[in-house]
Amino acid sequence: MTRLDQIKSDVLAANRGLPHHGLVTMTWGNVSAIERESGLVVIKPSGVAYDDLTIDSLAVLSLNGEQVGGGLQPSSDTPTHLVLYRAFSEVGAVVHTHSRWATAWAQAERPIPALGTTHADYFGGDVPVTRPLTKAEIEGAYEAATGDAIVEAFTGRDPDRVPGVVVARHGPFAWGPTAASAVENARVLEEVAALALHTVLLAPDRGPIDPALLDRHFRRKRGPDAYYGQPEEQPVTHSSR
Amino acid sequence: MTRLDQIKSDVLAANRGLPHHGLVTMTWGNVSAIERESGLVVIKPSGVAYDDLTIDSLAVLSLNGEQVGGGLQPSSDTPTHLVLYRAFSEVGAVVHTHSRWATAWAQAERPIPALGTTHADYFGGDVPVTRPLTKAEIEGAYEAATGDAIVEAFTGRDPDRVPGVVVARHGPFAWGPTAASAVENARVLEEVAALALHTVLLAPDRGPIDPALLDRHFRRKRGPDAYYGQPEEQPVTHSSR
Amino acid sequence: MTRLDQIKSDVLAANRGLPHHGLVTMTWGNVSAIERESGLVVIKPSGVAYDDLTIDSLAVLSLNGEQVGGGLQPSSDTPTHLVLYRAFSEVGAVVHTHSRWATAWAQAERPIPALGTTHADYFGGDVPVTRPLTKAEIEGAYEAATGDAIVEAFTGRDPDRVPGVVVARHGPFAWGPTAASAVENARVLEEVAALALHTVLLAPDRGPIDPALLDRHFRRKRGPDAYYGQPEEQPVTHSSR
Amino acid sequence: MTRLDQIKSDVLAANRGLPHHGLVTMTWGNVSAIERESGLVVIKPSGVAYDDLTIDSLAVLSLNGEQVGGGLQPSSDTPTHLVLYRAFSEVGAVVHTHSRWATAWAQAERPIPALGTTHADYFGGDVPVTRPLTKAEIEGAYEAATGDAIVEAFTGRDPDRVPGVVVARHGPFAWGPTAASAVENARVLEEVAALALHTVLLAPDRGPIDPALLDRHFRRKRGPDAYYGQPEEQPVTHSSR
Repeated sequence: MTRLDQIKSDVLAANRGLPHHGLVTMTWGNVSAIERESGLVVIKPSGVAYDDLTIDSLAVLSLNGEQVGGGLQPSSDTPTHLVLYRAFSEVGAVVHTHSRWATAWAQAERPIPALGTTHADYFGGDVPVTRPLTKAEIEGAYEAATGDAIVEAFTGRDPDRVPGVVVARHGPFAWGPTAASAVENARVLEEVAALALHTVLLAPDRGPIDPALLDRHFRRKRGPDAYYGQPEEQPVTHSSR
Repeated sequence: MTRLDQIKSDVLAANRGLPHHGLVTMTWGNVSAIERESGLVVIKPSGVAYDDLTIDSLAVLSLNGEQVGGGLQPSSDTPTHLVLYRAFSEVGAVVHTHSRWATAWAQAERPIPALGTTHADYFGGDVPVTRPLTKAEIEGAYEAATGDAIVEAFTGRDPDRVPGVVVARHGPFAWGPTAASAVENARVLEEVAALALHTVLLAPDRGPIDPALLDRHFRRKRGPDAYYGQPEEQPVTHSSR
Repeated sequence: MTRLDQIKSDVLAANRGLPHHGLVTMTWGNVSAIERESGLVVIKPSGVAYDDLTIDSLAVLSLNGEQVGGGLQPSSDTPTHLVLYRAFSEVGAVVHTHSRWATAWAQAERPIPALGTTHADYFGGDVPVTRPLTKAEIEGAYEAATGDAIVEAFTGRDPDRVPGVVVARHGPFAWGPTAASAVENARVLEEVAALALHTVLLAPDRGPIDPALLDRHFRRKRGPDAYYGQPEEQPVTHSSR
Repeated sequence: MTRLDQIKSDVLAANRGLPHHGLVTMTWGNVSAIERESGLVVIKPSGVAYDDLTIDSLAVLSLNGEQVGGGLQPSSDTPTHLVLYRAFSEVGAVVHTHSRWATAWAQAERPIPALGTTHADYFGGDVPVTRPLTKAEIEGAYEAATGDAIVEAFTGRDPDRVPGVVVARHGPFAWGPTAASAVENARVLEEVAALALHTVLLAPDRGPIDPALLDRHFRRKRGPDAYYGQPEEQPVTHSSR
């Protein structure tokens, strides 16, 4: 199986998995992944129900958006995904949904503060919110401008340390090294958004956690100091501490 | 299969689908559809559980409410549906539910503001709330007066651009060209109501989105500028961007 | 089948149904019913999981609490149920749960206002909250005192018009002519409590609905003016309008 | 079957049960239990999905943390569990989760007040919140310091009377005589947290219940005065009153 075939298989499984994670109403959500050697991006076709997806229906594009090989017309959000792949060199997959709790933060135009260790286990800081787009951006290359606003929101931030964002008035995007990890991050972002909203209802003025606690939890799961899971495990596991 | 038979089949399926979409507690909800050539309306019979519905149990009425053919006694909300068919010439089907989030807005007598793109993808503006009915209306032809109040709320609005409303102190109505699209709009209205309620909890003073963003999203999915889905698709799809 | 056997069968089915209606966490809830001719009350035995209930495990008591026939030890809430049967002569069955939304109102010591027609379809006025019990009542015949406080809350109210209550700091009780209708009222009370809580979040100062609207909806479903359902139906149906 | 084998079997079942109780997102949660005679603690291995757990994968440790026998590397939360077993001599099992409602209280750094009888049936007072950890504690033996902060929060409190806590900015821990009762307490703590949060939204200034009511309910289910369930039942049952 070639690397691209593996990625197509991962993208198919990740898109099909979105409903099972409770991340989509109707079928509002899409997953893409990139094969970095060839620079080819595989993404959900536009307007196809998850259950009808097949390997051959997936759209394959170059990093500048030219569709290659077969596949149906790509998601209309494709330009946003491509901007992220071009700007964030370590990102291997991107997920976009309208999941309820994260979308509430997006519509409120508020970043999701790091209020607890659940957040810190996956996101090494506040999850930023993008600036509103200008009228010209909205009426022009809107989806690409959405990607540009995300990249702008990460000025001075590390997208590998904070693998998600809420797009103002729209909804969340999340990413990761693989399609499965990007979906995991989207799922955690949704739960973290729910926890933060209810925390704010109980304590409107509660600020972010101690940076030392943020780092401790983030580094328990990542990098050279990671100390959980079994020795042969991946740095990021799906399991409990 | 005649057009009317097709519509009966659609109405049966749409009514039976309501519980699966999480739109009804007990069985509080009904769907109707109209065959415009003959002006015949098919609607759920009153007081029959969804699972007990059959094609022959569906009530068939003329636009002025005379029951024709067989079928059981129609839903007591029928006069409301008929007013909408008479006033909104493009509407092909109507759905009424007491779904939780939309009903909270109805009881609060607040329109649902267009706070994000999820709203804009289906509703081209705020979802209006009707005015309270007068004592005379309540004690007179109540259900017809409910319909009149909905039509009144759309003075200066396009019911095809905003395919739903919340009836003050009661609950939501939604509509569309077909029974399936009306149920889809009812389902999206419920999710949009949930998103808006939680957005308001996070940002009580947040106003509606930029009209340019509203139009961009609304027109991505409708009319000559629609640019998503596959070429042969319907202007409105059930799928993700 | 004797009347009492029928009631035992109804009580068994109603208790077993509580988890399916989402009304119980763990197994916090119980249903009883009375056979008015003999004055015998059938109630869930104490400390028995729903799935383990059998006809023979049900406790049968006289209206003054003497256990007759076989059956296990009755629910410790039995004295509350008996007070209601003695005071409310039309009540045929009683349900107690700790369902989430109604219990939040109970803990807040707030009556559930009639904020919309969903409420009015089943409850002909606000759902009252009981007064707090005195230390003497709490340390004495606590469960009977709980019943007395419910009866006291209905001074000047008709328990058939408002078939439920929230007990201060405790949770909801609901009732009806039969075990099935009492469970239906408990289920509607829970949904009405959820609707009211979210309505209050959107419009803290919103008062009850117009009494004319309250009556119109309450009487659509009950009594001589009821005009929905099919001719041969019961005055109270489980179905949609 | 030896006592230790029985405990391993209980711990396996309790960990596998967490997802079914809706207490875990992803697989954020772990259960341990102690065999007091030998002082051996059995705990979930780190980074293993619930469905992949086996008896042999469970980690077995001495009370001072030395791993004995086989098993995989223990949960990184193990030092917290061990501190609780050393400090609370009656505790037989400990559960940690990130369940949504209890975690919101933890992130808000607010104790969960005893606002109603549902709380009082299982927790004989407010559920305390721990103090924030110091930078030195966070950067040092963090998990053990978390346990110390829990023990500190119980200064002057009885951990058998209040079998749970919310750890500031982190989430809930609960315990009990057995793995099954600890999971039951974790599940009730989550429901109590949900009830309390919504009660606070309805009545921000509502204080705890009357101590007499708290004691009455707590003692209905425990100790010499317990008067529910069937004669031969355990003092704590899983069933309704």
